[in-house]
Amino acid sequence: MSVIDTLIDRLPDGRVLTDPDVIDSYARDKTFCEPGKALGVVLAGSREDVVTTLRWASEHRVPVVPRGAGTGLAGAATAGDGSIVLSLARMTAIRELSPADEIAVVEPGVITADLDRAARAHGLMYAPDPSSYEISTIGGNLATNAGGLRCVKYGVTRDSALGLEVVLADGRVLNTGRRTMKGVTGYDLTGLFVGSEGTLGVITAATVRLRRAPEAPPATFAAEFGSLREAGAAVSAIMAAGCQPSLLELLDRATLEAIDDMRSIGLEAATMAMLIGQSDATDSAAAVARMQEVCEAHGAAFVAVSSSPAEAEELIGVRRMAYHAKERLGACLVEDVCVPRSVLPDMIGAIEAAAVRHGVKICTVAHAGDGNLHPVFIFDRGAAEPPPEVWAAADEVFTRALALGGTLTGEHGVGLLKRRWLALETGEVVEEIHHGIKAVFDPLGILNPGKAI
Amino acid sequence: MSVIDTLIDRLPDGRVLTDPDVIDSYARDKTFCEPGKALGVVLAGSREDVVTTLRWASEHRVPVVPRGAGTGLAGAATAGDGSIVLSLARMTAIRELSPADEIAVVEPGVITADLDRAARAHGLMYAPDPSSYEISTIGGNLATNAGGLRCVKYGVTRDSALGLEVVLADGRVLNTGRRTMKGVTGYDLTGLFVGSEGTLGVITAATVRLRRAPEAPPATFAAEFGSLREAGAAVSAIMAAGCQPSLLELLDRATLEAIDDMRSIGLEAATMAMLIGQSDATDSAAAVARMQEVCEAHGAAFVAVSSSPAEAEELIGVRRMAYHAKERLGACLVEDVCVPRSVLPDMIGAIEAAAVRHGVKICTVAHAGDGNLHPVFIFDRGAAEPPPEVWAAADEVFTRALALGGTLTGEHGVGLLKRRWLALETGEVVEEIHHGIKAVFDPLGILNPGKAI
Repeated sequence: MSVIDTLIDRLPDGRVLTDPDVIDSYARDKTFCEPGKALGVVLAGSREDVVTTLRWASEHRVPVVPRGAGTGLAGAATAGDGSIVLSLARMTAIRELSPADEIAVVEPGVITADLDRAARAHGLMYAPDPSSYEISTIGGNLATNAGGLRCVKYGVTRDSALGLEVVLADGRVLNTGRRTMKGVTGYDLTGLFVGSEGTLGVITAATVRLRRAPEAPPATFAAEFGSLREAGAAVSAIMAAGCQPSLLELLDRATLEAIDDMRSIGLEAATMAMLIGQSDATDSAAAVARMQEVCEAHGAAFVAVSSSPAEAEELIGVRRMAYHAKERLGACLVEDVCVPRSVLPDMIGAIEAAAVRHGVKICTVAHAGDGNLHPVFIFDRGAAEPPPEVWAAADEVFTRALALGGTLTGEHGVGLLKRRWLALETGEVVEEIHHGIKAVFDPLGILNPGKAI
Repeated sequence: MSVIDTLIDRLPDGRVLTDPDVIDSYARDKTFCEPGKALGVVLAGSREDVVTTLRWASEHRVPVVPRGAGTGLAGAATAGDGSIVLSLARMTAIRELSPADEIAVVEPGVITADLDRAARAHGLMYAPDPSSYEISTIGGNLATNAGGLRCVKYGVTRDSALGLEVVLADGRVLNTGRRTMKGVTGYDLTGLFVGSEGTLGVITAATVRLRRAPEAPPATFAAEFGSLREAGAAVSAIMAAGCQPSLLELLDRATLEAIDDMRSIGLEAATMAMLIGQSDATDSAAAVARMQEVCEAHGAAFVAVSSSPAEAEELIGVRRMAYHAKERLGACLVEDVCVPRSVLPDMIGAIEAAAVRHGVKICTVAHAGDGNLHPVFIFDRGAAEPPPEVWAAADEVFTRALALGGTLTGEHGVGLLKRRWLALETGEVVEEIHHGIKAVFDPLGILNPGKAI
């Protein structure tokens, strides 16, 4: 009996997939990172399946790579040689949704937008909305501490996580956190698991916070600028003016061209950047009017304002097309630096300079209100990995972000992709503490080895 | 040379206090917990003093009890036999305050309200406001993950902590977190330190998030109810109606009597509970009008509304008097359960029943919008610790809070005081993980032993 057969034997029928092509499709995320040869895929249907898989993995020292929908952008779900892929995508129950307590208890495979829709039926919302929220899972969002467009007002995934049920590497079940709005009993284990990329345990249920959904439709604007730096300066000014946008996204010329090429948006020759913003406040029209004024004061050539939901959705739709549009240009190295808002124009300048210096095409979109930029480095689709000039340009961008008081990753995570720069940001003491904590939860080192830390 | 002399020798002059009466005054917090005989008190003036003290403590295996202003309510800063008290209260610099980035970098001894005032000068605020915020320190707030009145809208201290500088038990310096709004590089060590009550390291600087201060003066109301349960039901209804109060406090009859006794507030015979609420939204008057309606629909006999800052401060002032008023009644065991909001009336009922059953005087105030209740058990000031009937009543309150899906402590922490109930909430696996994490940071166990976990 082979090792994988002993697992098949212990799990209910149909839970383990061993077809090589199927395994390969479960061994990747949205990056170019090439997986190794995994042993198989477990489609967990319950917490018990997860417990069984992890006990088996501990006995046989088999690395376990947990995954949600595989929409990650850092290689955190890339499976290595000899590993078992543990998919949580079939655990899709919303176990509880309490409008009175404004919480939900969900399984990890719930699609993020599905939870948001379920909450909306009660006048509530699930705030975190990564661009992938129609296809990504709550479990994956928790594992990566996913951000999104609404973060600028409502915070990231960790800010909505109250408690977790986690299966540890040895199969023991750990319950963290609480169902209450506040709680300080013991160490913050919930926060520790969020963003740990499956290296500390496997999340099998989560208690998340819901919020009141805004009652009126939001007001939305799109502003066109003649330079990226002007748009960046407008962002800083909007935030400093206390406009509290619920969304504030920046698109550069290269991104706009890619979108215009995919579906004509009537892009003007002089438009070098676009800022798309929204307010969902009770006085949203007034807030957007203030943002419009700030944009005009910072050189915006044209500002379109809308309070009709359909028109607003059209403006936001331009932003949502960005990734698809870029994927048509070639293979993508998607980066994710985040800087203090005041230096957003400097960071934008550094990205532009790196593109020119290294002769690399970079398209940038940003969750600008958070200072979180996604420079996307385009390279030849045929290449197994990015060519040296792309790495060199990326290196320059990271180094500059850190020098500006920023971080390597605002919301995508470290995964495989950013480990080469990790020590630049964290340093030796943090590294030692990271590995010490890892050993407490996973002494055999079987949980998603080589990721996150 | 005695052990303490070797420390005096290494630190700048005047940093170590050894007078027994002085030591005793630094060995207590606001609880009745009796300290042991500490060796001395270090008044740290810099990070270097903290490093020196911790290196010395590691060499000599001396327990270190870090402290801010000693306003804690769980005994977390109670010093044990043979320990050294490490006071951070003299490290009071606001090193940086950036209005553009909405952050501040502060030393641990900064008084919380001082930081808030410094931020207000730039149109910003530091949101967390424990009742003690005029005398407590940021360092103590971080160590306990302090809550406060504004939590209901702005979250707890952890929600405002972006990064920390921490000295570990062996004297190494660890930098966690970031200066940016978002960031997911590595594990959430910042969140782990917040609320760890000095058991993992000593915070010597913090980067905290500031927020835009509301522009208009807030609108405020006080509502009088004929029963505590009606008031509790009004709280649930206010939150469910999406009124988003910036403060929502509940006071029971016993608390109101204690306040009235201290300074007459014209308490009516039929008033069994008072609800004090505030909105700082741009449409604050409308929000308060809605809250007033909800209160009246739930049986409020009288609702006073004010949008004048002076009148509002008078209404809130009643709430702020609560602790002083209770201290006049006797010694206090202050508890801190937090329950899901929907069961607030049940929890209030359980507290009333425990008071009757055990013949104990309990005065309750609550950060009601968060479901966070402070039942204060009054006992004879002469007693060294609470009599058996107080412990029995407290035990009943804790057990009921957990049964209702709540937690032992919403914002005060576990300290010494709640360790006897800790296992009821956390269980064996969490306990093991807690101690594993503790050992990573503090393998010799010298940091605030016997607290938090």
